[in-house]
Amino acid sequence: VNRTAEDIEKRVAKGDKRWLTKFFSSSHPADIAIILDRADDPDKAWLFSLLSRGKAADVLAEIGEETARKILKGIEVKKLSGIVAELESDEAADIIGELSLAKREKVLRKVSPEQRVEIKQLLRYGEETAGGIMATEYVAVNEQVTADEAIEEIRAQADEVAEIYNVYVMDKDGSLVGHFPLKKLFLSSGQTKVSQIIEPEVVKITTDMDQEKVANIFSKYDLVAVPVVDERGKLVGRITVDDVLDVMEEEFTEDMYKMAGSDGEELLMSSPFKVARIRLPWLSICLFGEMISAGVIGYFSGTLRQVIALAAFIPVIMAMGGNIGIQSSTITVRGIATGRLDLSHRRKLLFREIQIGALMGVTCGAIVGLLAALRYTEYTLALVVGTAMFSAITVSATIGLFIPLAFRYLKIDPAVAAGPFITTVNDIVGLGIYFFLATLMLGWLT
Amino acid sequence: VNRTAEDIEKRVAKGDKRWLTKFFSSSHPADIAIILDRADDPDKAWLFSLLSRGKAADVLAEIGEETARKILKGIEVKKLSGIVAELESDEAADIIGELSLAKREKVLRKVSPEQRVEIKQLLRYGEETAGGIMATEYVAVNEQVTADEAIEEIRAQADEVAEIYNVYVMDKDGSLVGHFPLKKLFLSSGQTKVSQIIEPEVVKITTDMDQEKVANIFSKYDLVAVPVVDERGKLVGRITVDDVLDVMEEEFTEDMYKMAGSDGEELLMSSPFKVARIRLPWLSICLFGEMISAGVIGYFSGTLRQVIALAAFIPVIMAMGGNIGIQSSTITVRGIATGRLDLSHRRKLLFREIQIGALMGVTCGAIVGLLAALRYTEYTLALVVGTAMFSAITVSATIGLFIPLAFRYLKIDPAVAAGPFITTVNDIVGLGIYFFLATLMLGWLT
Repeated sequence: VNRTAEDIEKRVAKGDKRWLTKFFSSSHPADIAIILDRADDPDKAWLFSLLSRGKAADVLAEIGEETARKILKGIEVKKLSGIVAELESDEAADIIGELSLAKREKVLRKVSPEQRVEIKQLLRYGEETAGGIMATEYVAVNEQVTADEAIEEIRAQADEVAEIYNVYVMDKDGSLVGHFPLKKLFLSSGQTKVSQIIEPEVVKITTDMDQEKVANIFSKYDLVAVPVVDERGKLVGRITVDDVLDVMEEEFTEDMYKMAGSDGEELLMSSPFKVARIRLPWLSICLFGEMISAGVIGYFSGTLRQVIALAAFIPVIMAMGGNIGIQSSTITVRGIATGRLDLSHRRKLLFREIQIGALMGVTCGAIVGLLAALRYTEYTLALVVGTAMFSAITVSATIGLFIPLAFRYLKIDPAVAAGPFITTVNDIVGLGIYFFLATLMLGWLT
Repeated sequence: VNRTAEDIEKRVAKGDKRWLTKFFSSSHPADIAIILDRADDPDKAWLFSLLSRGKAADVLAEIGEETARKILKGIEVKKLSGIVAELESDEAADIIGELSLAKREKVLRKVSPEQRVEIKQLLRYGEETAGGIMATEYVAVNEQVTADEAIEEIRAQADEVAEIYNVYVMDKDGSLVGHFPLKKLFLSSGQTKVSQIIEPEVVKITTDMDQEKVANIFSKYDLVAVPVVDERGKLVGRITVDDVLDVMEEEFTEDMYKMAGSDGEELLMSSPFKVARIRLPWLSICLFGEMISAGVIGYFSGTLRQVIALAAFIPVIMAMGGNIGIQSSTITVRGIATGRLDLSHRRKLLFREIQIGALMGVTCGAIVGLLAALRYTEYTLALVVGTAMFSAITVSATIGLFIPLAFRYLKIDPAVAAGPFITTVNDIVGLGIYFFLATLMLGWLT
């Protein structure tokens, strides 16, 4: 594979259109999408132009957002509408949604009237809702038909729908009443009414449900496709598991990057300036936050001047508080995201986390105190460091749990809280405790 | 839902078996699994005993590992073998794999000979490989049969296989030659040979492929089920997307927890002692690492005594280096896991990261230098702090990229590197640079 990657790069650099056209025609769209994602920006558009219309559509459906935007910028309306006509409704809507309003209208004018209506309908839903990820292609039959009639209907509809999985069953008003798996048709006699073989939906999914919640439902109930209904219970679309896999990866990756204060698109950017611009906002929050830490140390500089050895333990106090805050907040953020954390037990959780913090605090406080005693043979110092470590760890564990829960309560994404923000808060609090205890105890003890 | 959760808790506390039995009989196995996961340890076994055999099997397939272990410990061999007989082969093997060797033999002796062979075969594969997650239930036909004959075979096999998706096609030796989606049978005439409608597999998946790689293939190629072959190309099993969703969640969550130095099972543990025991190993690595930081500060205590204000900037140097290290390493670890990071470009990546680091370093160095100048009106100090910040950030970004790549090269999971380990290394390096520059420049400039 790596051998091919180098080969392709050379051909791209040489502009070897013949070789690349041939290579693309025998490659899977998902593989071509990766090649385009990784290609340098100026090459993306002409590489895309080498694809046949059908392949171009499949590749466009797989490609990263950044790359898609770059390719769509230069493409002609006529070519684009040809490609859009080949796409499933959900992918078509995603692509059209990336265009400027003027271009959007032009492209929509060139596709079939049905597709225009479908796409316009899909564009009305929020991008990260069930409506935003569903497709309008599915196979549905009326509850009154027999198995044989259902087979006829499926034959008529099957061409439009790439994979069927389940057949949906509606009443005469178009309201969803249930589904049956395709294989049931092989196991039933031709005269069986479909109402006899239907299974009810486990969960009702409406167009406005958040995509992360949809993904959790798929994974909890082991689903492959779910029907989506509007607020009146009418069947309007279908979400398939391949879209859910993308949502899961997207949501997870987003959480992880948010926690680090960066962004996944970073990987695909060739310009260090752009990457620095994504990362700097978070870093500057941290930078100004740490100026408060500097203020804390400055405030206690009298104490520090008296016992210069106190400075040596600043890193360990900060690092331990920081790491414990990250542990607690990671567990909390992930627990909220997967639904494994039971929020109705907030108080119990907080109490448990204080206990965990105290246990770790006692252990680490004792170790650090001992090391301080051994290194400096200053028992007061050792006592200060050990006690401060214990307190800082306990408080940090609690803050690490509390802040994401509070963010969640305020309807802010908890992942935003978990990274630099909590670390900075913990640094300030930890150092405050350390120097406060030092000033207090040194006064008492010496 | 929360109202019900409280209700259930009360009934569990009261030991209301009648109410719970009725409630469970009308609940989805996935919902019951969550109730058992969240129940206190002593309640898990008796709650499980309230389930009918079929439901018990479905619940056991959905439950967390910790909970399963607790329930399996107390269960009788006879009851367990009845439950195992209801499970699909992959789930049966997972459950049997949790038992002690002695109990395993006893249970296997009670199931059907075919199931015994299947389970024993599956247990031979590594838990985190394609063989470990595949099931032996699938529908396959010979390439010589017609569509009508295939329908007959599917009818015969359909009862054993919950969801069919694709029908696999083998040659006369049992080697896999391809597949066709079930709907193709509706669209073909009865006399069509299946060899005319088969599609080749996009990727060959062998029993020893790592499960994370399998998950990446599913998500890249939008698959719903894949056949698994042995080293000779013989069809031996099938992996379905519901198992892949679980693998994806498991792998993400594992990565995220590893980066924080904790473990997902933490959420399900009621004992703070156990949680502290999981987290402490990582924390102690950090603790001893930060003793090196203490040594660095101790070594330069002469300089610090001269300019006590240097201490105030220790937090900002540490925190910025730490955060940038986490940003770079998160991007790297996630990029490796999703395959978006192109490892053949190691040198280019490293060079780009140095540039990114330098850009952020210049910005943050200038801001901190300015703030130091304003606060202390000591221009030498400001110069020292600004330069140190610049250097520490550039080096931290580079280390954050380099260490995960090095771990990957040494075949250690890069996620292990990304958390406390890199932060600690960056603290030591950052502080070393800061005090070294301070000592040098204060000598020159004052």
